[in-house]
Amino acid sequence: MRLSLSELDDFSLKILLRQGFSFEHARGITDTVVAGERDECHSHGLYRLLGIVETLKAGKVSPDAKPDIVEQANSIVTVDACGGFSQLAFKSGLPILVEKARNNGIAALAINNCVHFSALWFEIEQLTDQGLIALAFTPSQAGVAPEGGYKPVFGTNPIAFGWPRAGKDPFVFDFATSVIARGDIELHRRAGKQIPLGWGVDINGQPSTDPSAVLEGAMRTFGGHKGSALAAMVELIAGPLIGDMTSVESLEWDEGTKSLPRHGELLIALDPKCFLGDAAERHLARAESLFDNIQMQGARLPSQRRYQARKRSIATGVELSDSLYSDLRNLLI
Amino acid sequence: MRLSLSELDDFSLKILLRQGFSFEHARGITDTVVAGERDECHSHGLYRLLGIVETLKAGKVSPDAKPDIVEQANSIVTVDACGGFSQLAFKSGLPILVEKARNNGIAALAINNCVHFSALWFEIEQLTDQGLIALAFTPSQAGVAPEGGYKPVFGTNPIAFGWPRAGKDPFVFDFATSVIARGDIELHRRAGKQIPLGWGVDINGQPSTDPSAVLEGAMRTFGGHKGSALAAMVELIAGPLIGDMTSVESLEWDEGTKSLPRHGELLIALDPKCFLGDAAERHLARAESLFDNIQMQGARLPSQRRYQARKRSIATGVELSDSLYSDLRNLLI
Repeated sequence: MRLSLSELDDFSLKILLRQGFSFEHARGITDTVVAGERDECHSHGLYRLLGIVETLKAGKVSPDAKPDIVEQANSIVTVDACGGFSQLAFKSGLPILVEKARNNGIAALAINNCVHFSALWFEIEQLTDQGLIALAFTPSQAGVAPEGGYKPVFGTNPIAFGWPRAGKDPFVFDFATSVIARGDIELHRRAGKQIPLGWGVDINGQPSTDPSAVLEGAMRTFGGHKGSALAAMVELIAGPLIGDMTSVESLEWDEGTKSLPRHGELLIALDPKCFLGDAAERHLARAESLFDNIQMQGARLPSQRRYQARKRSIATGVELSDSLYSDLRNLLI
Repeated sequence: MRLSLSELDDFSLKILLRQGFSFEHARGITDTVVAGERDECHSHGLYRLLGIVETLKAGKVSPDAKPDIVEQANSIVTVDACGGFSQLAFKSGLPILVEKARNNGIAALAINNCVHFSALWFEIEQLTDQGLIALAFTPSQAGVAPEGGYKPVFGTNPIAFGWPRAGKDPFVFDFATSVIARGDIELHRRAGKQIPLGWGVDINGQPSTDPSAVLEGAMRTFGGHKGSALAAMVELIAGPLIGDMTSVESLEWDEGTKSLPRHGELLIALDPKCFLGDAAERHLARAESLFDNIQMQGARLPSQRRYQARKRSIATGVELSDSLYSDLRNLLI
């Protein structure tokens, strides 16, 4: 089933409104899942609508919560999502974060009590679009063991970063601090395939290639003790620091409903113009030399595949599988 | 040769003053190298004095530069080290960074034009001591290839983080984004030992276990493309963003003198009290549960070995090898 991006947008909006989301939430969620599908990040695309509706049915997300904004300090804005999906809270906090970063050079946005499934790059790009440098962190639900241990403490705890480039797609990365996404292990299980050694351990802490055993046990962090340290940092700064849940607490809150995870998120924005003043142009040109040095030797910048997919999708639309299209159609009935 | 920490302090101060450093610089450098020796981070201990003196003789560091402070924006302070070692610049900027973080919730300190050899944890702990959360980033000299490439673009580009804990040593990590420190490869070369496959590539981009070949070629980043993305982020935010050199530029600036690297550094401080207000105590207790969950399963928190060494060194002093002691004594003549 081939659909243009605007057809995809209509389709998603209709489903969410039919399922009882307020227009503001339906709009925010749709922007995110259409962007995911457009960039061929299928696991963050329209497929997510299935989980979104399940989460609503499980009573684990509000369909119409209105975010509550508090300007916590000169350089901090906090948005309480009040149990809704994160998109509307992010949208409400974004202009204040941008203003604070431009006024003060660096600022932070904390989102609390949100249900979060968005890829962080989607948020990061809204800051690089404004000429700002951005960082984002969020815990999820415990499924990843610390290095040297075997019991889940961390979520997949992604870290994302963006750097604006004049006239070019921004330099953006967004990766899980787990060695692999949970979804990849689930795909192996469904396909009856073994997973590579090193992705996780069974419930007794033994390294395993059995996807079911690892899903019951724990995934590992990427990069050994360094990745594990970063995962702990994400827990701390996007959990207790902002008064929100750790991944262990978020899993408990889920009560086995397998809903999309509820927790907080921390974003940091920096304004290069505050750091560089009149010298901005000269110094940002040196960043371009860095990118050239990477690409001229055949190495890739992150997100390039995503930007290529975006161009294709804008030109010729996207393909939804018949089974996904049919599952989504059923949500309109 | 066993010395108490105060004997070590006297010894380092005398050497630096004898070599022509101003008292302020000698004091700052001594604090750093004594702390390194005390925590048994020998590569950041008194051994560094040899490289410090070589760097001075090569004309690549100022012995008496006075740092120049500019309050760039409400939440940014910039300190120009004017070609001196970083310690004095950090010390000058620290109280302003702390004040800005306390007033605004988040703030940044950029240090420019410094020669930098300090372990970042030493700076991070001075922020956690004040109850602040801290991040630090610095490039170095190009010796690390981006994932998928084989030519040096990045330095070892460390990332450090600290989280204060009431009545306990802080949660601190400080690691290179290269798979291993350059010094470890040099130690293998001197000992005539092979290095493990995966540490680096030769000049043609072939994986190699020959330390000399990798030192001429390039080291790899830790954690594949994720570590490589982080290394690029460090280049950007502690290089062009603050108007300072990338690792490639820093290596050119060195002109083959093998001096300690000159470049910039970015520190970010966050004040939990601004984020949490009256709820601070309750939320920081949840961070303690996270640490308990990690340690109860036998996994370690970072920096614990360092804190244990610190206790030992405070009680019974430290041991300098005869050859290091004799090399250092020669700097007093």
